[in-house]
Order: sequence, then structure tokens, then C-alpha cells
Amino acid sequence: MEFISGISKKEYASIKELAQGSCDGKTVRMEGMVHAVRDMGDVRFVILRKAEGLIQCVYEEKTAGFELGELKDESAIRVEGVVYEEKRAPFGRELRLTSVTILSEPSAAMPLPVNKWKLNTSLEAKLNYRPLSLRNLKERAKFRIQEGIARGFCEFLTSQGFTQIRTPKIGAKGAEGGSNVFKLDYFHRPAVLAQSPQFYKQMMVGVFDRVFETGPVFRAEKHNTKRHLNEYTSLDFEMGFIDSFQDIMAMETGFLQYTMELLKKDYKTELDMLDITLPKVDEIPQVRFDEAKRLVAEKYNRQIRNPYDLEPEEEALIGRYFEEEYGADFVFVTHYPSKKRPFYAMDDPDDKTFTQSFDLLFKGLEVTTGGQRIHEYQMLLDKIEAKGMTTEGMDQYLDIFKHGMPPHGGLGIGLERLTMKLIGEDNVRETCLFPRDLSRLEP
Amino acid sequence: MEFISGISKKEYASIKELAQGSCDGKTVRMEGMVHAVRDMGDVRFVILRKAEGLIQCVYEEKTAGFELGELKDESAIRVEGVVYEEKRAPFGRELRLTSVTILSEPSAAMPLPVNKWKLNTSLEAKLNYRPLSLRNLKERAKFRIQEGIARGFCEFLTSQGFTQIRTPKIGAKGAEGGSNVFKLDYFHRPAVLAQSPQFYKQMMVGVFDRVFETGPVFRAEKHNTKRHLNEYTSLDFEMGFIDSFQDIMAMETGFLQYTMELLKKDYKTELDMLDITLPKVDEIPQVRFDEAKRLVAEKYNRQIRNPYDLEPEEEALIGRYFEEEYGADFVFVTHYPSKKRPFYAMDDPDDKTFTQSFDLLFKGLEVTTGGQRIHEYQMLLDKIEAKGMTTEGMDQYLDIFKHGMPPHGGLGIGLERLTMKLIGEDNVRETCLFPRDLSRLEP
Repeated sequence: MEFISGISKKEYASIKELAQGSCDGKTVRMEGMVHAVRDMGDVRFVILRKAEGLIQCVYEEKTAGFELGELKDESAIRVEGVVYEEKRAPFGRELRLTSVTILSEPSAAMPLPVNKWKLNTSLEAKLNYRPLSLRNLKERAKFRIQEGIARGFCEFLTSQGFTQIRTPKIGAKGAEGGSNVFKLDYFHRPAVLAQSPQFYKQMMVGVFDRVFETGPVFRAEKHNTKRHLNEYTSLDFEMGFIDSFQDIMAMETGFLQYTMELLKKDYKTELDMLDITLPKVDEIPQVRFDEAKRLVAEKYNRQIRNPYDLEPEEEALIGRYFEEEYGADFVFVTHYPSKKRPFYAMDDPDDKTFTQSFDLLFKGLEVTTGGQRIHEYQMLLDKIEAKGMTTEGMDQYLDIFKHGMPPHGGLGIGLERLTMKLIGEDNVRETCLFPRDLSRLEP
Repeated sequence: MEFISGISKKEYASIKELAQGSCDGKTVRMEGMVHAVRDMGDVRFVILRKAEGLIQCVYEEKTAGFELGELKDESAIRVEGVVYEEKRAPFGRELRLTSVTILSEPSAAMPLPVNKWKLNTSLEAKLNYRPLSLRNLKERAKFRIQEGIARGFCEFLTSQGFTQIRTPKIGAKGAEGGSNVFKLDYFHRPAVLAQSPQFYKQMMVGVFDRVFETGPVFRAEKHNTKRHLNEYTSLDFEMGFIDSFQDIMAMETGFLQYTMELLKKDYKTELDMLDITLPKVDEIPQVRFDEAKRLVAEKYNRQIRNPYDLEPEEEALIGRYFEEEYGADFVFVTHYPSKKRPFYAMDDPDDKTFTQSFDLLFKGLEVTTGGQRIHEYQMLLDKIEAKGMTTEGMDQYLDIFKHGMPPHGGLGIGLERLTMKLIGEDNVRETCLFPRDLSRLEP
């Protein structure tokens, strides 16, 4: 009988080993895609693309043992070569080729110049050819940064005693009600796709005190803007035994602090490649909703048209205000009006037209919505009635309050929006691998 | 202006600190839910439930400053008390109460005895009251174990150079074709929910070499069995530059080895509570599909009815065979017949009626399907034709092969099934927080 006993180290050098200099002068073996073949006249290079970056391989006809003309871009190859220090090469090392084995070959040339440093093509073209355009180094780097953010969320919350949960995406009724839900047929019963894990994460606070989930959410909104997606990744947490919604904002600030350090540590190559300056997160200002509106109206000479709503331009101006006045990239806007928040938001006991809730703006764009939730059964019933809603389909949710819930609150962060603002893109489609919008269902 | 500068340590003791003895003799403050009030005649206890476990609080009328009769189960409370060593108490410590503050109270008594050690009730009742029944210690412990498995997957693959990706769940066409897809209306266009991230993770191998995803998948299968869910969590990975599908099995074995160590280290309380003996994963036997059929037919005196399919009873017998003969909990069954595998499976060059693929059986249940994929464009076109399929809707997928892909393969693991077998449950609904099946769409 044959047995499998786990991974054995392959006889291949990693870019990390090369960069550290431990392979200098030695013959190593590497695998990767042919990113480009470059003929500089007196010297010719095969540029190998690996997940960690590019490796410059020097081709010399007499030692390489193969014809360079045979090698097509986007072939998968295995190379052997001797490692030399070379300051101008990526990672400060190059390989002088002694052999090349072709593992697979493309049957057609690339429709996009993915091996250019910057893919100078329209967003539309990039998205149409998404599986190919992502092979460009700068395009893919965005999603390494995105991985870092999601990893930071998971690692930080785990360190803070949160339990990761997975809640269903198909359900009988939308958590937030409303009409912006995708409907589907579930074995001849009407069902919807989850707009958020809100009800479930609250249920789970009664079980694990602190929970988080990173998963897809679905919004059938007919917005066609640069900041909306119809399917996106939501970083959600919910925590019990809070003293106030200030605890939620403190936890989010802690997450951001942890994540910026993680990015500096493990994603430096990508930060440098995209020329990203990480935002300041040592302290984040907070301002009341009404105060924020007043401040920007005053400073930028604007009229307040609707005291209960923030227009996108106002959000942008609040971002600008706090950047100019405090050098802050982030700002917590607190105490949103009750009429603009869902029924489960805890009202401010001092003034029930406002809630104990917040949005986090990042360079003028909302990237988080959160706050304290109502945890008392009767208060929740009263609020539902006051909003003119019914409790239909909410029995299971209401049960948790009937049978005891601690004071709690939480938030939801849009992963694509946070990534977009962090790397300085202006369209959220740039930071979603395969975006879904009004017109885009493929690839 | 007020600023938020991150989390500040609350003035509360953690169970970890208590267990380590660093609070002995001191007055501490804790928060939690009233799990039970127990009157033992001469001594009365308030049992506090926290995410980490239970804390025994001793009530003495003259020092406690409140009436015990006022305290309802499932109230959220804050207590103060002096810590004493007490071998019979959980974590070896108890709190002698000096004060109790009620943070919130239930308005009705629990419909289930969640504070019993074992919730002696039907699965049906547990699922109907899921948000409440999960408050039972043994019920919730299953999902801590599940968290550990998912964490192991993420941490191990990250250490092996994999990038975490998030692919869309709404698409234009199912990855595996077939009829078992949920259909929905996407802004007046037909769309489906993803049955697997198969196509997308293959696309991303061309970008990052090695990728993984942990996310929901949707199967509109009309099975009503103990091992099927219509929505479940799939642990998926896909890796490039493999020598053969043996590399995939080696990577999965590595994941299992890492995860069992992680469970021992960080989830010991839950392992003990559920009385789990972790399976042996130092080496996992592999056996060919046809050979496995022959072995069990021989040993258990069974006829082979269909040489191209494994019946559930056969899977169970293969599990039994390898347990009896090799003391193995896991077994890789390799070389599944081509006609039972999807078009993208790489055929065995020695015998094209079989594929270079495998299932992993855990105690006789399939928990993983994986294998090498076809990476050559023409071979894929030929296979699609040979299967009598069309390439309709697959242009974007086929493009990646046209433009060059390395040899690659991967797998998908059913998280709920793996958890179920690990903790010794016999119904997969036991290890899904909020299961979706033919009849269950709520809670």
C-alpha cells in the first residue's frame, strides 16, 4: 500500500531565498510563466513571472542549450541557471540560464500587453479580459493588498476573542427588508439572497459574545456608479457587552492599526509597486452627523438642503475638511438620523431623532456602517411599529431578544471600497476580481 | 475634536487570566450571560456563561448585595467577586460574588433547556430553535471546532504561498454545467448561483500560481440525505506547476496535519468537551478506484454492480476496510472513471477511461474531490466535444488555456462534512449553523 505523508520540499529555489543571497553562485531550478523575452542587442533576457514577482534570466546561446526564438510569452517553463548578484535586476539577483524546459505553451498571442509595466487600457477592456489582464503585475498587486486587508480583519479579531462564523446566503426574507433583494426560486418557494448577515450575526452574539464573518452580500440596487457593486465582500463583526457604540469604533480602529502594520510587514513589494502611502490610523477623529454638515456648509459655503441625509458630495467634503484641518484620512461620522437607519439601530436616549451609530469615511467615501443595536425585546417591537413595519418573517430573530441578549453592536465594512481608497483607485470595479454590476455578469 | 485611538483594555478579567491563577485572592469584574442559577441547599451558585466557557460564582446573601430570586437565566450581567481556587469548578477557580449588575433581561423563559450539559432534544427541534439551541455549550463547541478547521486551511495555505481570492457567486452559467443550479433573475437576465468556484480558481492560477477560497457554494440537488446540504461552505484550492495530482493530495495531507495540531493547541477545551479523538494524519493510504472496489468486494463478499460508480455503501466499506487493515481514518481513492468526472479532469495518459483525480474519504464519507486539470487548449476542446458538450458560455474560461496555463490541479473540501466526521456526528445539519435543505429555508 502507498501512503501520502504530507508535503515534501520541492527541489526549487524560491524568490525569497534568491533575494537573501543564499543561492549566489549556485545552480538553481525555478518554475514560472514567461512574462517576456527581451532582446537588448548584446544581451537577451527571459523574464520569468512567479507569484512573488519577476526573475530576470540571462540567455546566452552557447550555454542555454535551446533556441530563444522558440520561447513564447505565457509559456509555463522550468529553468535551471546559476545565480548572480545584479543590482539592476528585481530582488538584486539574476539567473544565467543553463537549461529551459517548456511545460506548456499558449496557442495564441495575448490580446492585451499584460507584460507592460502599466496596462494602458480602458477599465472596460480590462474587465472584458479579466482573467488575462490580472496577469499584469500592477493589476494583480491590488488583490494581494486586498488579501492583506481581509487577513488583517481575520487575524486581529481572532486575537480579540471573536469567533468566525458562516451564515446562509439564501434565506426566506431580507435582513433589512426593502426591495433591493435578488429573488430566486428555492424548490418552488420564494427566497432571497442575503443583503447582509445582520440578523444572523446578532443571533450569534447570544452564542459566542463576539463574532465575525467575511463573505459575499448581494444588493439588487439599480445604481450605476463608481462606488456600487451588486455583489461585494462584506467584513462584518458584531460584539456583545459593549458600553456604547464607541467600543465598536475603537475595535475598528484597532483593526485598521493592525492591518496597516501587517501590510507593511508582508505586502511591502506590492505597496511599493503601487506606490501606496498608508493612511494615518493612530487616531481617528469623530464628529456628529449634524455637526459635520454644519462644518462643511460653513467652510465650503454650501447650503444644507436635507438635514437628515448626507449627499455623496457632502461626504467628499467632510473627508476634505478633516484632511485639511487635522491631516486625517479617516473620520467617524456619528449619530445618524433615526429615519435613515434600520429599525434595529439603537436610538440616542437624549434625542431619539438620532441613533447611536456611525459611518466611517475614508478620503470622503463611506467604507463602514455600524452602531449599537437594540437589545431589548419590547423596545424592538415598539421601534418596528413606529417605523410602520410588521414583524412578519422575523419571529426567529425576535426570539433572541425575548430570551435575553446582551447590549451589543457591530459594523459592516465594504472590502472592495476600502481597498479602492487604500490604493487610490476611483472605481470600485478596479478592486473586485470579477465585478457584478447592472451590465456585467461575466466573466 | 474627539479622537479614537484604538482598543483600550477593559477593566475585566478574562477566563484565561483566572485559569492561570494570576487573579487568586483579588476582586475582579466579569460580564456574561446567566447560564443557570443553582441552589444546592447550603450553597448557591450563579453560573456565568462566556465565549470561553462557564464561571462558577458563589452567592452569599450577606455579601452579594442583591436577591438571588431576582436573577433570571439568560440575563446579561456584570459581576464583581473575589477569586478563589476551587478544584471542582470549571478552570479550577470560582468567584465569590460581591455585586451583580443586570445589563439586560429576557422577557420569556427558554423553550429549550440550553443550560443542560447535553441538549436532549430532536435535531428538528434544535434546528427550529437554532439561535437559542446554539447557546448550549456542546452545541456551540462544534462550531468552534469548525472555525479551527477553516482557520487551519487559511493559515496553512498562506504559509505555502497561496493567495486568498474571492470569486463571484452570481454568474451567467454554472461552472460544472448540469441542472442542479439555482436560477435567479439578474436585472431581467437569467443568472445562476455558483455551484463551485472551479472556473474562477483556475483562471486565478494563471495570475497567482496558487490560490484558495473559502466560501459558500449552492447546489439545487433534490437529495434529502444526512450528508447533503443545498448551501455549504467549500474549502477550495488550486495550484500551478504540479508534477502530478499526487502534489494535490500531499498538500491536503499537509493541511490536515497542520489543522490537527492547531486544534490541539487552540481548541483543547472544545475537543475535551465533545470527547473527540483526533484522527491519524501522519500518513494517508491511497488506493485506485478499481482496486478499492475489488478489495471490498472480496473482503465483504459483495458483488460489483457498477464498475464506474461508488455507491455510498461502498464508500463506507472502503472506509471500514482501511480502518481494519491499516488503522487509517482517511483514505485517498484515486483514478476515478472519466465518465464520472467533469470535462476539465485530466485523463490518465495510460488509460483514458480513468482520470488523474481522487476523492478523500474520511471514515467512509467523501469529504474532498480533487485532481489534475487539463491545461492544454486543444485537449480541452477535444474533451468537451467527446463529452457531447458545447463551449457555449465558456469563452472566458477557454481563453486562459488559449493564452497559456501551467500544469495545475486542485480540490474542494466540504467544511460541514469534514467537521461532522471529525466530531462524530451522523447528520451534516449538526455542523452547519443554519442549514439549507429541501424543506429548510429558516432560520
